[in-house]
Amino acid sequence: MSHSAELIAVGTELLLGEIANTDAQMLSQGLSALGINVYYHTVVGDNPQRLRAAVELARTRADVIITTGGLGPTCDDLTKNILAECFGRKLVYNAEAAARMEDFFRRIGRPMTENNYQQAYVPEGAEVFQNDWGTAPGCAFEEGGVHVLMLPGPPGECRAMFRHRAVPYLRRLSQGVILSRSLRLFGLGESAVEAELRDEMNAMTNPTLAPYAKIGEVELRITARGADEAAAQALIAPVEEELRERFGSLIYGADVDSLEQVLLELLRDRGLTLGTAESCTGGLTAKRMTDLAGSSAVFRGGVVSYTNEVKRDVLGVPQDLLDREGAVSEPVARAMAEGARRVLGCDLALSFTGVAGPDRDDRGNEVGLVYVALAAPGETRVRVLRNGPTRGRSGVRHIAASHGFDMARRWLTGLPDRDK
Amino acid sequence: MSHSAELIAVGTELLLGEIANTDAQMLSQGLSALGINVYYHTVVGDNPQRLRAAVELARTRADVIITTGGLGPTCDDLTKNILAECFGRKLVYNAEAAARMEDFFRRIGRPMTENNYQQAYVPEGAEVFQNDWGTAPGCAFEEGGVHVLMLPGPPGECRAMFRHRAVPYLRRLSQGVILSRSLRLFGLGESAVEAELRDEMNAMTNPTLAPYAKIGEVELRITARGADEAAAQALIAPVEEELRERFGSLIYGADVDSLEQVLLELLRDRGLTLGTAESCTGGLTAKRMTDLAGSSAVFRGGVVSYTNEVKRDVLGVPQDLLDREGAVSEPVARAMAEGARRVLGCDLALSFTGVAGPDRDDRGNEVGLVYVALAAPGETRVRVLRNGPTRGRSGVRHIAASHGFDMARRWLTGLPDRDK
Repeated sequence: MSHSAELIAVGTELLLGEIANTDAQMLSQGLSALGINVYYHTVVGDNPQRLRAAVELARTRADVIITTGGLGPTCDDLTKNILAECFGRKLVYNAEAAARMEDFFRRIGRPMTENNYQQAYVPEGAEVFQNDWGTAPGCAFEEGGVHVLMLPGPPGECRAMFRHRAVPYLRRLSQGVILSRSLRLFGLGESAVEAELRDEMNAMTNPTLAPYAKIGEVELRITARGADEAAAQALIAPVEEELRERFGSLIYGADVDSLEQVLLELLRDRGLTLGTAESCTGGLTAKRMTDLAGSSAVFRGGVVSYTNEVKRDVLGVPQDLLDREGAVSEPVARAMAEGARRVLGCDLALSFTGVAGPDRDDRGNEVGLVYVALAAPGETRVRVLRNGPTRGRSGVRHIAASHGFDMARRWLTGLPDRDK
Repeated sequence: MSHSAELIAVGTELLLGEIANTDAQMLSQGLSALGINVYYHTVVGDNPQRLRAAVELARTRADVIITTGGLGPTCDDLTKNILAECFGRKLVYNAEAAARMEDFFRRIGRPMTENNYQQAYVPEGAEVFQNDWGTAPGCAFEEGGVHVLMLPGPPGECRAMFRHRAVPYLRRLSQGVILSRSLRLFGLGESAVEAELRDEMNAMTNPTLAPYAKIGEVELRITARGADEAAAQALIAPVEEELRERFGSLIYGADVDSLEQVLLELLRDRGLTLGTAESCTGGLTAKRMTDLAGSSAVFRGGVVSYTNEVKRDVLGVPQDLLDREGAVSEPVARAMAEGARRVLGCDLALSFTGVAGPDRDDRGNEVGLVYVALAAPGETRVRVLRNGPTRGRSGVRHIAASHGFDMARRWLTGLPDRDK
């Protein structure tokens, strides 16, 4: 039997637009990976009547209700009270939750005010989701065929509590086991991937296959239901194999976080270092690498050469090359990457020079034209990108940086580059 | 009379978690600035029954319903059909919308397929919101005291259509005029601002004052309702004046986009240039500056010195200083900023060295400790930040970069720095 879920987010800050409901996005992805259909998201403020009405409605149309937010220590935090009331349960004190909170405050070295104890009350008979990432515990219970799960609102806590507390609870609801595997592709648009797979995807029921578009990338998620883990794995394996055969080296990883994370691990495994020389990307490539914890082991540094003087004086790009070819050109991309490799003392260097927009450059080059170069021992590779103006400045920049990561990944794994 | 709104987002991609409902956040902010209360957000898939049920419910509890999404050319795009049906209107062909679409496709140089004409139908008697940012027009009509507005789903289109089409429509619903003014503060936490203003804010009815937390910043929004624009302005002015008196130079701008945008404009006005030397921020500062169109007029470039060798060889930080003081120290921050100023040939240079986390550095410096330096003609200023581990890696980095922008802003406007 397939379950259907409704997500209810509680918080006036969502209705004022102070934050986006990213919890709903995260939970929707996670539920979809568990084979649970999400039919509604609802957002209400910190208002007892409207929350009550939303819950009463949800229980008529979903058999899994997940609330986010409203579990904190202030008088605005009503979720547990209202849910307990709607489902006819008392709130009871959970000593373990209280002890964990006391411990949490000791660790961060702040006094625990009395109102925090409010968070230690949970509906009677509920399974308590102890919170190792904050103070408010969550919980889950079943009443009349409806499963109610309550999770804290702050996105970091919500994500961890879902993954480590709610997912095990929800897995027990399904017959057998549901497993997902996510393949990440770079170098083919979502519509191209979808066009190629549409008929097969529509014909599949177990496992299912769904494409998710990212900026310049596609994620293909295979989800299988089996009597046990081995059975689900056995359903996924042939689909993965077929996709790998079809898309080959466009697939850069399975169950990975990002292209740059894959690159970081390749560099670490091979004991090699990376540097960057960025014109149009303006530091974005270095920023994305250094977003990753542990990047200092492989990333030596970068130069943001936003002017020709910096390209010449810091990276050593010859002035006559800049004059003759223009800053946005293949020879300058090459010279930037090779200069960065020398100046930064790294094994591989990526360079980017192009027109991010909104306007053409002073030589009339179109928006979206970017040269990306990889300087490696004994060889420099260049790609030319023409993204056109529809991507916008941030899209042009993001995709260019991703191409750089992809070029380095391909070199490190002994693959030829796609473009010239 | 105050209006109450419900937002209905239509799209299976939201229920699968492929995207977050950022349209709802944008609209909620915009409606709040118009003095319209938002009580519910609802998300449904591309499913006629569930969309119909959501609309029937919304009309019982809101007098402004705004839908986003489902206006496109495919058979999944049901919003106009369902809304027209719920409110008993026929769909009629709008020749201007069709002509604009033909024009749009000519401009981007792609053929217009027949199914696009489906988008040119709108409910009879509706005011058509022509779309200058995409293909699908939106529309608005009133039926039985309920105003229904339909906007396209893609965030860029939704934002532009709201601002230029829906806002003028909604303004006509209110008696008089509603105006907002947004003051941006850097250097004081949201809870501190709120604590200071709470009693006043609660006592205010016209104008109202609301704080919005951003990472490391606060936005204070004053919203007034008046018989005409001058009357609303007259209500806002004394509140703004009082806030400026109270918060002084912590307020960096009114109705501005960001701290870096303010800095860019100050630099442009004064004909000065900026450069960066980044260790723990890893290119983020340069990236944020170059996110801004027009930054090439003032931003010369940057060095991401993620290793001591790059600090020494590219920025000229003396090796014995690095050995003696450690990379995360005030003297090294100073030397990095002064080195960047020299190497990049810029008037002002910002430097960042610190511990972004998740772990302490090899000298045992705590996560969140960052030195930020500004090298200017004749003077170098340094701030020490201690953000603690609760901010997380990306928070530590973002706030450090913002401090740099703030230091440059203060120097350019002749203000002393807050910290030493």
